[in-house]
Amino acid sequence: MINVIIIGTGNVATHLAQIFKKTNEINLLQVIGRNKTTLKPFSNFTETSSSFLEIKSADVYIIAVSDDAIDAVSKKLTINNQLVAHTSGSVAMKNLSNKNRKGIFYPLQTFSKNQKVDFKNIPICVEAENKKDEIVLQNLGEKISETVAIITSEERKTLHLAAVFVNNFVNYMYHIGNTILEDKDISFDLLKPLISETAKKATNTSPKNAQTGPAKRKDILTIKKHLHLLQNSPYKEIYEQLSQSISEEYHKK
Amino acid sequence: MINVIIIGTGNVATHLAQIFKKTNEINLLQVIGRNKTTLKPFSNFTETSSSFLEIKSADVYIIAVSDDAIDAVSKKLTINNQLVAHTSGSVAMKNLSNKNRKGIFYPLQTFSKNQKVDFKNIPICVEAENKKDEIVLQNLGEKISETVAIITSEERKTLHLAAVFVNNFVNYMYHIGNTILEDKDISFDLLKPLISETAKKATNTSPKNAQTGPAKRKDILTIKKHLHLLQNSPYKEIYEQLSQSISEEYHKK
Repeated sequence: MINVIIIGTGNVATHLAQIFKKTNEINLLQVIGRNKTTLKPFSNFTETSSSFLEIKSADVYIIAVSDDAIDAVSKKLTINNQLVAHTSGSVAMKNLSNKNRKGIFYPLQTFSKNQKVDFKNIPICVEAENKKDEIVLQNLGEKISETVAIITSEERKTLHLAAVFVNNFVNYMYHIGNTILEDKDISFDLLKPLISETAKKATNTSPKNAQTGPAKRKDILTIKKHLHLLQNSPYKEIYEQLSQSISEEYHKK
Repeated sequence: MINVIIIGTGNVATHLAQIFKKTNEINLLQVIGRNKTTLKPFSNFTETSSSFLEIKSADVYIIAVSDDAIDAVSKKLTINNQLVAHTSGSVAMKNLSNKNRKGIFYPLQTFSKNQKVDFKNIPICVEAENKKDEIVLQNLGEKISETVAIITSEERKTLHLAAVFVNNFVNYMYHIGNTILEDKDISFDLLKPLISETAKKATNTSPKNAQTGPAKRKDILTIKKHLHLLQNSPYKEIYEQLSQSISEEYHKK
């Protein structure tokens, strides 16, 4: 049995608390959060407190707060020499306060408050200052997920950067597609099967081999037609830059 | 019963021939293609010919060839005043030869030769010069798909442009993510659940509301860290441009 306390009440804290609560060999002892409104829902299934002074004794303390609050929250904890891990993709482990043993417990996924997630399929990236703590975090991860990877802070930075491309920038491409259609009163629903299939392809084959489209085949005529359609659009430069980059990449040497 | 002949032997021709063959109320009469090697597999389940002179009489002739061959192939057909439709997203209906009645039968999906597709979920965009032919194409579409939309050549241009963003450019983002990880020997598999979830979100909620990330929240510090990681990368400018565009879009007014 691993005793866990979560500090934070946002999306990651919510999803972690729910899965910890459901998992037999994990004991979610407490959720700590200063915002009483967002803390409230947690009281339905575990002990909660809005005071750092009331924090209990546990095997792992997980700080699941926004990136810029990690430092301050880790300093406020009224515990010493305990295993304290944060859940961020972009904050280094060393940013945690020195008074406790540092660790990372980073679920590599995008969370929304009301969308259910299947933790089994979410990679958990863990890191710790010493082997013993690393094993604790690894064990904790393995109880909820089929993929637990030991990832250094350096590697995690790279992962987070890559995630910006495949998540944030991809979503922006969806948004641009949606906007282009909305302007002409065409339903975005028509593109949804294509969106699903494109994502599926990337997980089955290498994206390098899956690349298609006018820029890939240097189809200048189609590119020109598209740029003409985009002549007054804020997205014209993005189309140009991406097409040029694809074209250069697939026709180099 | 609708009698159909397919002209072409590529990915779209292959998938259409397979689904037509399987569908009760559709009679796939013939597949015509000049390349005997790529035509061969079709002979396992229907009549084939590599000569345009042997083309039979049918209700609908579907030209499924590459965009730049549509014009020439439609001119070579030795039939007159028949309903001839092409399957391209980016070629106007008027590009078909005047000697036949023109139409469009555009399945909005990305096809690979060896990847199975479920036509039920693929939107079919149809267009014709007259109502009667439009109904024929609509009926044909409805026999294989749950979504058939009547889309003008103008609208189809816009759809195709939007599809470049959500398919070609999205795949390129996957490729960039993959490359960034490969350079540091980190497995791309770690990102696959994120890729699936991001696509799922876009089909459940509006991409505008789903947008997250450093550029969305104007997290200059993280953006700077990422640009530093990308300092010698060909993808630095793409990161910069997309971040700037997202940032402007979500912080305008």
